[in-house]
Amino acid sequence: MDLHDLIAALPDGTVLTDADLLASYRQDWARDPDAGTALAVVRATSTDDVSATLRWATAHRVPVIPRGAGSGLSGGATAVDGAIVLTTERMRDITVDPVTRTAVVQPGLLNAEVKRAVAEHGLWYPPDPSSFEICSIGGNAATNAGGLCCVKYGVTTDYVLGMQVALADGTVVRLGGPRLKDSAGLSLTKLFVGSEGTLGVITELTLRLLPAQPPQSTVVASFPTLTAATEAILTITGELRPSMLEFMDSVSINAVEDELRMGLDRQAAALLVARSDAPGEFARREAEIMAAACEKAGATEVFHTEDPAEGEAFAAARRLAIPAVEKLGPLLLEDVGVPLPRLGDLVSGVAEIAERNAVTVSVIAHAGDGNTHPLIVHDPSDADLTERAHRAFGEIMDLAIALGGTITGEHGVGRLKKAWLPDQLGPDVMALTRRIKDALDPDGILNPGAIL
Amino acid sequence: MDLHDLIAALPDGTVLTDADLLASYRQDWARDPDAGTALAVVRATSTDDVSATLRWATAHRVPVIPRGAGSGLSGGATAVDGAIVLTTERMRDITVDPVTRTAVVQPGLLNAEVKRAVAEHGLWYPPDPSSFEICSIGGNAATNAGGLCCVKYGVTTDYVLGMQVALADGTVVRLGGPRLKDSAGLSLTKLFVGSEGTLGVITELTLRLLPAQPPQSTVVASFPTLTAATEAILTITGELRPSMLEFMDSVSINAVEDELRMGLDRQAAALLVARSDAPGEFARREAEIMAAACEKAGATEVFHTEDPAEGEAFAAARRLAIPAVEKLGPLLLEDVGVPLPRLGDLVSGVAEIAERNAVTVSVIAHAGDGNTHPLIVHDPSDADLTERAHRAFGEIMDLAIALGGTITGEHGVGRLKKAWLPDQLGPDVMALTRRIKDALDPDGILNPGAIL
Ligand SMILES: Cc1cc2nc3c(=O)[nH]c(=O)nc-3n(C[C@H](O)[C@H](O)[C@H](O)COP(=O)(O)OP(=O)(O)OC[C@H]3O[C@@H](n4cnc5c(N)ncnc54)[C@H](O)[C@@H]3O)c2cc1C
Ligand SMILES: Cc1cc2nc3c(=O)[nH]c(=O)nc-3n(C[C@H](O)[C@H](O)[C@H](O)COP(=O)(O)OP(=O)(O)OC[C@H]3O[C@@H](n4cnc5c(N)ncnc54)[C@H](O)[C@@H]3O)c2cc1C
Repeated sequence: MDLHDLIAALPDGTVLTDADLLASYRQDWARDPDAGTALAVVRATSTDDVSATLRWATAHRVPVIPRGAGSGLSGGATAVDGAIVLTTERMRDITVDPVTRTAVVQPGLLNAEVKRAVAEHGLWYPPDPSSFEICSIGGNAATNAGGLCCVKYGVTTDYVLGMQVALADGTVVRLGGPRLKDSAGLSLTKLFVGSEGTLGVITELTLRLLPAQPPQSTVVASFPTLTAATEAILTITGELRPSMLEFMDSVSINAVEDELRMGLDRQAAALLVARSDAPGEFARREAEIMAAACEKAGATEVFHTEDPAEGEAFAAARRLAIPAVEKLGPLLLEDVGVPLPRLGDLVSGVAEIAERNAVTVSVIAHAGDGNTHPLIVHDPSDADLTERAHRAFGEIMDLAIALGGTITGEHGVGRLKKAWLPDQLGPDVMALTRRIKDALDPDGILNPGAIL
Repeated sequence: MDLHDLIAALPDGTVLTDADLLASYRQDWARDPDAGTALAVVRATSTDDVSATLRWATAHRVPVIPRGAGSGLSGGATAVDGAIVLTTERMRDITVDPVTRTAVVQPGLLNAEVKRAVAEHGLWYPPDPSSFEICSIGGNAATNAGGLCCVKYGVTTDYVLGMQVALADGTVVRLGGPRLKDSAGLSLTKLFVGSEGTLGVITELTLRLLPAQPPQSTVVASFPTLTAATEAILTITGELRPSMLEFMDSVSINAVEDELRMGLDRQAAALLVARSDAPGEFARREAEIMAAACEKAGATEVFHTEDPAEGEAFAAARRLAIPAVEKLGPLLLEDVGVPLPRLGDLVSGVAEIAERNAVTVSVIAHAGDGNTHPLIVHDPSDADLTERAHRAFGEIMDLAIALGGTITGEHGVGRLKKAWLPDQLGPDVMALTRRIKDALDPDGILNPGAIL
């Protein structure tokens, strides 16, 4: 493929074809061993660059893989042979408007950078994936990312008021805007959120912001059994709306403790980190209610702190769980969610699947919204183990579907989960999805192989 | 058109063709004088009835106008000559699940009935259009309805977790479900919310619920000028997140006072009703902050109550504004919204348009989210006045667009505002909308003439 026209259409240094560089853009955090190798990486500096790349790609029928920071866990940004990887990592502007409580952001800015920029105005952008320091806001919108505070504050789509998107043929459209309510026309902004780069490339976002979060009270509780922990979760969510309700199992507790040596209870079967940000002393009161629920459910240790920094250390420990467990070996990462009352069934079912397949599966969870991450440890050099790990990977998704759940609560379908999507959605919803995909990307150049 | 097959496919008494009945389903609350007359009204009792009607309609290329309770203000449910009006008014089941805090609801149940059913479980469905006692939950989802508490709690889309939809050809699909987080596939649920019956007919909704709302503190303030009131609004929203922040102008204050005789200040240029539902005594504290903001902005009278019933009386007064002003004459109803800092410009611009066209325009507003309802009074028997009223109707939308706003914050585009939609969205977004419409409704039978 002759890249001359593409290179000519873009600023100097935007198109990379160096083999080492191409290699570094092959995979996302899911590290799919079957990743292809791109023809070139385009490091766009502007909406115009994105548009020009898509125009060229449409003209030459070359696939384009949109990429943010590559922290995705479902292979959504995995390179495809002969494709262009189009990364937004150099598009990093932000403008905060404290009066409308909105920010206009380019997609390449990291989530943590967005949070910091708005905090300077006393404002808060809630969605907080554990990866917030290494994922882009554009990737967050493209995957409808969740996080730890979502149990109370919702997911990315709840904060996206508008966007600029470059469509498959390079046409740039502006959807929504800095208006808190807008019913003019179809809900196109919402359609693009979570579309994983299959319908267009997001080149700018208008985000809704909240006033700074009040200080949180934190409860940390250790449980002797998984059942006790899931019971506490249901009691807590039945009584109030925590600002965080996170779960770690024994494997992840120990993996994190190996890293941090902060005194987590290595004997516990499960650990909950629960927080409240209710105003004033209501945070403490809610924390007391949550602590009591943990005790009643049989927690062996319940720790309660009003000190935000101390509480944050436990949230950080939970955030470290994926990288910590990854030290045990490469992971197949699940993201299955169920209606909350089925959480216990999901967790015990996963344990049963792990045992049957003789694989280590560590379960961590955004427990308050029923979204779990079973982390399946494997070893690419052990073919048999890898096969069992993949079998468990599928069985866990089958289980989630059987429990009325979802194969992905927040990471997206990407390439790694798409074989299970029809089982969850059924043929008619798949056909509907295909109709929308074909209408918006008739040549199929946008992230082919993701979702569909 | 031979209705025999349709009648045979549906339960007895489902298909109505009586002329009086057809007449009563011609218009929605916008009372478009140009409404057509349907061939028949189908009062569906089930998803199967809806599906059978659409199958028949597709086979015979007959337009279908989905209809909830007919309280719409933009002519979205206006009958079209030769069409089938498909009403969901008999589909009224609800099941509440207090553990997952969700409800599964048929579309014909009224918003107020949903609120009451979930309140029995100590739960709360927040979206509260002023019309909550006369609008259906299906219509709410189809228009992405807003309301009074939306300034803090968001709009309908924020509470729709899933739905069942009958597509144009009668295929029934299930989207989303009772999962708080779900990233499996495109955000189709969100696409159907706000689609105003142009993409499918909603036959069931899965709603997210919150714990019961805490008691609210209420502030009512009268202002000598519109500027003073808009200044107070900006101060309030800059300092906290009220659970309600509503605005009435002099015409609507007097119209409501004529109805209720509750002692509203008839001399005031504007009235604000502001509430806080922060926990415990924080509600009072927030109300005090709001009262102080009103005083500082120059309010002539500021009243503050902790009594929920008394506060509710003022909210009810605000809700009565549209019917009360309607007593002055038929209304052309606007729903324009702007970014909050432009609210003052919008309100003064509307006054200028009213004066220039010599028409009475009463402005009420969900002020906290910049969404206003200029109500243009006219008189169909006065052709000249009616012409001026229509001119003002268009000029107000032009003004909103010029201020970076929207022609509709919550009522939808329907038939009455569609001429202005391209001015707001531009040709590329209109083309994108058309591609999605064509993909989902290739024969164009679903609510033709609405939005597009
Ligand atoms: C340790 C760890 C913890 C994590 N924790 C969480 C968590 O708590 N919650 C959560 O939701 N996720 C979590 N993730 C997953 C990941 O961080 C999120 O999915 C994130 O939103 C991806 O952002 P990114 O910029 O890295 O996107 P990428 O990985 O680069 O891309 C993700 C997808 O979005 C598409 N895309 C990216 N940018 C654009 C754009 N501008 N326009 C269109 N499409 C685009 C890509 O094509 C791809 O399909 C975690 C990941 C790691 C490694
Ligand atoms: C006095 C008054 C005050 C109001 N205040 C507010 C307010 O504060 N906020 C607000 O948002 N609105 C308000 N409205 C407008 C109106 O009540 C809302 O738009 C409401 O959501 C319409 O619901 P409905 O059941 O009456 O729908 P209808 O008027 O019957 O239909 C509205 C639209 O939805 C479509 N539709 C209806 N049901 C379905 C279905 N099941 N599937 C697919 N499409 C369907 C119709 O085709 C039409 O396009 C007010 C109206 C009145 C009369």
